[in-house]
Amino acid sequence: MSVEVSPYEGDGVLAGYLKAAGVTLDIDKVRTLVAGVVGAPEGSQPDAWIDLVAPDAEEPLRGQLLVLKSIVEAETAQSLPIGERVSALRAELDRRGLDGFVVPRTDEHQGEYVPPRADRLRWLTGFLGSAGMAIVLKERAAIFVDGRYTLQVRTQVDIDVLEPKHLAETPPTQWIAETLPSGGKLGYDPWLHSENAVTTMRKAVEKAGGVLLPQAENLVDAIWAGQAEAPISPIVPHDLAYAGKSAADKRAEIGAALDAEGCDAAVLTAPDSIAWLLNIRGGDVPRAPMPLSFAIVHKSGAVDWFVDTRKMSPGLGAHLGNGVSVEDADGFPAALEQIGPRTVRVEASSAAALIFDKLRAGGTTIAVGEDPCALPKACKNPVEIGGARAAHQRDGVAVSRFLAWFADRAVTGDLTEIEAADKLATFRNEGDLIRDLSFDTISGSGPNGAIVHYKVSSETDRRMKPGELFLVDSGAQYLDGTTDVTRTIAVGTPTPEMKDRFTRVLKGHIAIATARFPEGTSGGQLDILARHALWNVGLDFDHGTGHGVGSYLSVHEGPHRISKAPSAVALREGMIVSNEPGYYKTDAYGIRIENLVTVVPCMALEGAERKMFEFETLTFAPIDRALIDLPLLDKREIAWLDAYHKQVLREVGPGMDEATRQWLEKATQPL
Amino acid sequence: MSVEVSPYEGDGVLAGYLKAAGVTLDIDKVRTLVAGVVGAPEGSQPDAWIDLVAPDAEEPLRGQLLVLKSIVEAETAQSLPIGERVSALRAELDRRGLDGFVVPRTDEHQGEYVPPRADRLRWLTGFLGSAGMAIVLKERAAIFVDGRYTLQVRTQVDIDVLEPKHLAETPPTQWIAETLPSGGKLGYDPWLHSENAVTTMRKAVEKAGGVLLPQAENLVDAIWAGQAEAPISPIVPHDLAYAGKSAADKRAEIGAALDAEGCDAAVLTAPDSIAWLLNIRGGDVPRAPMPLSFAIVHKSGAVDWFVDTRKMSPGLGAHLGNGVSVEDADGFPAALEQIGPRTVRVEASSAAALIFDKLRAGGTTIAVGEDPCALPKACKNPVEIGGARAAHQRDGVAVSRFLAWFADRAVTGDLTEIEAADKLATFRNEGDLIRDLSFDTISGSGPNGAIVHYKVSSETDRRMKPGELFLVDSGAQYLDGTTDVTRTIAVGTPTPEMKDRFTRVLKGHIAIATARFPEGTSGGQLDILARHALWNVGLDFDHGTGHGVGSYLSVHEGPHRISKAPSAVALREGMIVSNEPGYYKTDAYGIRIENLVTVVPCMALEGAERKMFEFETLTFAPIDRALIDLPLLDKREIAWLDAYHKQVLREVGPGMDEATRQWLEKATQPL
Repeated sequence: MSVEVSPYEGDGVLAGYLKAAGVTLDIDKVRTLVAGVVGAPEGSQPDAWIDLVAPDAEEPLRGQLLVLKSIVEAETAQSLPIGERVSALRAELDRRGLDGFVVPRTDEHQGEYVPPRADRLRWLTGFLGSAGMAIVLKERAAIFVDGRYTLQVRTQVDIDVLEPKHLAETPPTQWIAETLPSGGKLGYDPWLHSENAVTTMRKAVEKAGGVLLPQAENLVDAIWAGQAEAPISPIVPHDLAYAGKSAADKRAEIGAALDAEGCDAAVLTAPDSIAWLLNIRGGDVPRAPMPLSFAIVHKSGAVDWFVDTRKMSPGLGAHLGNGVSVEDADGFPAALEQIGPRTVRVEASSAAALIFDKLRAGGTTIAVGEDPCALPKACKNPVEIGGARAAHQRDGVAVSRFLAWFADRAVTGDLTEIEAADKLATFRNEGDLIRDLSFDTISGSGPNGAIVHYKVSSETDRRMKPGELFLVDSGAQYLDGTTDVTRTIAVGTPTPEMKDRFTRVLKGHIAIATARFPEGTSGGQLDILARHALWNVGLDFDHGTGHGVGSYLSVHEGPHRISKAPSAVALREGMIVSNEPGYYKTDAYGIRIENLVTVVPCMALEGAERKMFEFETLTFAPIDRALIDLPLLDKREIAWLDAYHKQVLREVGPGMDEATRQWLEKATQPL
Repeated sequence: MSVEVSPYEGDGVLAGYLKAAGVTLDIDKVRTLVAGVVGAPEGSQPDAWIDLVAPDAEEPLRGQLLVLKSIVEAETAQSLPIGERVSALRAELDRRGLDGFVVPRTDEHQGEYVPPRADRLRWLTGFLGSAGMAIVLKERAAIFVDGRYTLQVRTQVDIDVLEPKHLAETPPTQWIAETLPSGGKLGYDPWLHSENAVTTMRKAVEKAGGVLLPQAENLVDAIWAGQAEAPISPIVPHDLAYAGKSAADKRAEIGAALDAEGCDAAVLTAPDSIAWLLNIRGGDVPRAPMPLSFAIVHKSGAVDWFVDTRKMSPGLGAHLGNGVSVEDADGFPAALEQIGPRTVRVEASSAAALIFDKLRAGGTTIAVGEDPCALPKACKNPVEIGGARAAHQRDGVAVSRFLAWFADRAVTGDLTEIEAADKLATFRNEGDLIRDLSFDTISGSGPNGAIVHYKVSSETDRRMKPGELFLVDSGAQYLDGTTDVTRTIAVGTPTPEMKDRFTRVLKGHIAIATARFPEGTSGGQLDILARHALWNVGLDFDHGTGHGVGSYLSVHEGPHRISKAPSAVALREGMIVSNEPGYYKTDAYGIRIENLVTVVPCMALEGAERKMFEFETLTFAPIDRALIDLPLLDKREIAWLDAYHKQVLREVGPGMDEATRQWLEKATQPL
């Protein structure tokens, strides 16, 4: 925050200002609203929340609201010392007559991003990773993390209190089955585990001869003084000029699809599905412009939307229209119970167990199935694809400007990873329609590049040296589209091994970029194309080849992907997916080449007997020619890269100053 | 049968001969045993069953037993006229108070091959295809077949009585839900449907407001006068010299694996799993040398084997040893019920619903999971791989001799598909250790080659003409291995289009043959390699790329395969799988190139960071060079084919006469 703050004049004075501005909220309600604002990310418009209290507020009201926010912020920062938290949780176990409690890193929506209020795992344990789970029993406690975090967890967590476990090697279910005492009562928060997860956990508990008990109040919330409130960030309309299809049309289509499958309604728990369906955006979680809410969509197309109404920006009601009934979020569980003997679709892998409990209590027939918005949301309409192309053009200008800037500076040995990431953000912020980055930039030089989910911090930051590789994976949220691009750049002269590996990764990238495939093909079927050149010499990379990307929404979305994992989801026209093969040499360097691509019908193919698709590449930024081992590429691959570079120059060249353009012309020369 | 038969001297005289030979069976028991023999395929040793009555029988007993068999055969050939069968089934519905009955084409083992007794669908409807299902209601009846049979079913079945339906477009469940009257009682035979199938069917019946009722006696059996008996064919030991691992070792390993997973036992219903486990072979079904039986394998490694004991050849008991308790097949259901409160593994996709019903009735905990023999059976041991190599060498001699013979004759325009298939069988039968073909030879010229599962008959047989392609897919059962090979040969001069298509299929074949892949890779991940060159021009083929193959067992076995379908089963060392991409132009020609390959560790790969596998090709026979469009192949592909052909000459050349060898030398010249 860069605003100037005046001293707080007191609740009484503020109440007067509010009244004068025509605001009917009393001062206590304003304080709780501000607590929610503090629980939300700041985003690119950190003061937009003021509209939720007093639209178009002027001084001195505006200044006083801002200072109130910093006061509330300071109040919520206080909490129990970290060393006492597990003990406090055990005391709470005793109070409830439980023998253990499960603390996952999820919120009520089981999404990738959680607001500060839901980051109970971090508060309880100190673990900073983006996935994990703790189980605290009376005598023992463990924290489960995946392969990315097995080293990190030992530095962040007191391992005398919490035994670190590898999620895949000792899954929580196995640990429960072996560790929970017979007759033991294990508590869980039914908001924070999917129905499938609870079913699996129950089996493990029963194996141990224990019992799994849902808890109406989360045990961590009971002991977490200073816990953030649920986030409050303004919910705004997503303009039809970007969405391409009205919310009314979307609702009618989803309703008709449910009807055709014999469902009366579906419960939506994914915030991005609801944001897509209602053509709204928000800011409750970092980097993904969506409000947290729940919804029930009926076969008529009508929607019951359960949301903290304080988040609704002025005029949002009119945008939503008559088909959307706005209900307070607190009423959601009761509304589920009142659905009664109808058939309702719910996704068992993502919807909270509590939702199933409530539906069952009401006698509802549950049709387990996919979120009905997932597939239509993934298949972007022509307006969204047009927006994606425009967003990528601007993003390509920023990335290319950064690469030109980087080329001069990196070899000096004086440039750090953080400086590079900041400079890239600066170039992006000079473009139009930008709202945020789409994720924290991965800016890894030398050995840091080999850490797939590297997050640069002041502790890990380092200066780049000639002879190293620099990997930068970044993206932005534009009103008209979400971007995600990775480039790997040689600092100085690369080794022959680096060039060999880079070229094999590039061959994989080109194989995906040029693939043609019949209707019905899934990303799982294409995946090997990205790895073939690496496999030929006994190498591989340990992440997926591609993830779905939203349209000014989450940078990771389903249901499609390109990966080794078997998948039955076919790639369809309009889907956007990343194409990002890589190679990582631990403690040495990392390589990744990532463009976003979209599925398009195959251009007229003479004699084709099937309906064929191919990819259109959306991302435009030069690929480092200095890293190419030319004899490893065949003619077709060289032709692709030359054509791609020609297109880069055409797309992003016009947006540049003369010096940068000259650099770009050199960087995109034919091989 | 080519044996000479003398007139039957009467039951009294035969009884005297039997007594004189020391046989204790009375004449009625001999007659029922012979009825079982009539219900089994003849196989390559059609008189071996005599040992089951009187080991080493001499004349005149031997001759009288053979003539008795032909008498029994003639007796069972009588049956209701086909036009009256559906009506008779409806009368049986009335007698039982049912509104419908389901007739699948399966036996109690849900396997690919069914003995004549279980071919109820064929008897009831006249349909000759290898998959399908009929549902007969009081007023309506339908037959469901897959895409292969939609034309054929209309010529074989009275469509005024049985409405033909496409399995995928109108699944039986949908038809039931729409057609069964409310309150209707639909009967089914719980031996003939898997647990999963019954669950799905029950949902459909409930949707119609009806009820699904298991029937203790199959309704078709009740009206089928002259129905064959369950097959009786001698069960013989499978020698350790071919099996490579003793049955005792296999039993101990399977038992230990069950124990480790918390199971007390597993029910085995797949005849090939039991044949593998006990190192036995038999002849109850065509083309696959396995006896029909059931088994329960305990965690101790002990096996309860439920089998018609009349099938046991002399000395088999000693081969089985103490760990195998031989029980009469009729006792199997009762034995399931008596397992009681233990945990038992059963495969829900293949085990009959009756098995689940009995286990539940006995209070057994069912652990649904894969057949525990499926994976170890698929991973051939070194002795089996050695046997496979030897069998393929002999098979390659036969196929190459056939191809040389064919090259001279096909262009005359006088050769028919049946003559070609017969000649190929003759060459195979001249080799050592052959016991049978592994499936009915597919011998398709011109448009017949485009029918993927073409079965030549006197009605469809045709003479080959220059300008056509000939596709021959065939294989054999050798004591030391099972083979399966497809070659496509140009008769005269092929068109440029044929060469283009053949070469693209060949590129796919080579891509699979040369693939390297890390441990954990499934066949589904590799599949695209076989299709990539076709997809590039908008073409594809509508079958899997590869199926597992047994070791002197079924030519189709799981759990691995190479196909578009998602699969979580990794390819492991010793697995044998076919590599058979194809291309089919309806009404014109068919192309398929099939070799069997086995998974081997990747030869020393300098710098490899992963445990890598590759395929060793087992099949040796020339690939038609006249069909290759050379410019479509890259250097690596040409090198593979030249090396393969060199190896063909080295492997199979020595087994040939001089003229054939000269032809082979030409056929295997470098491109």
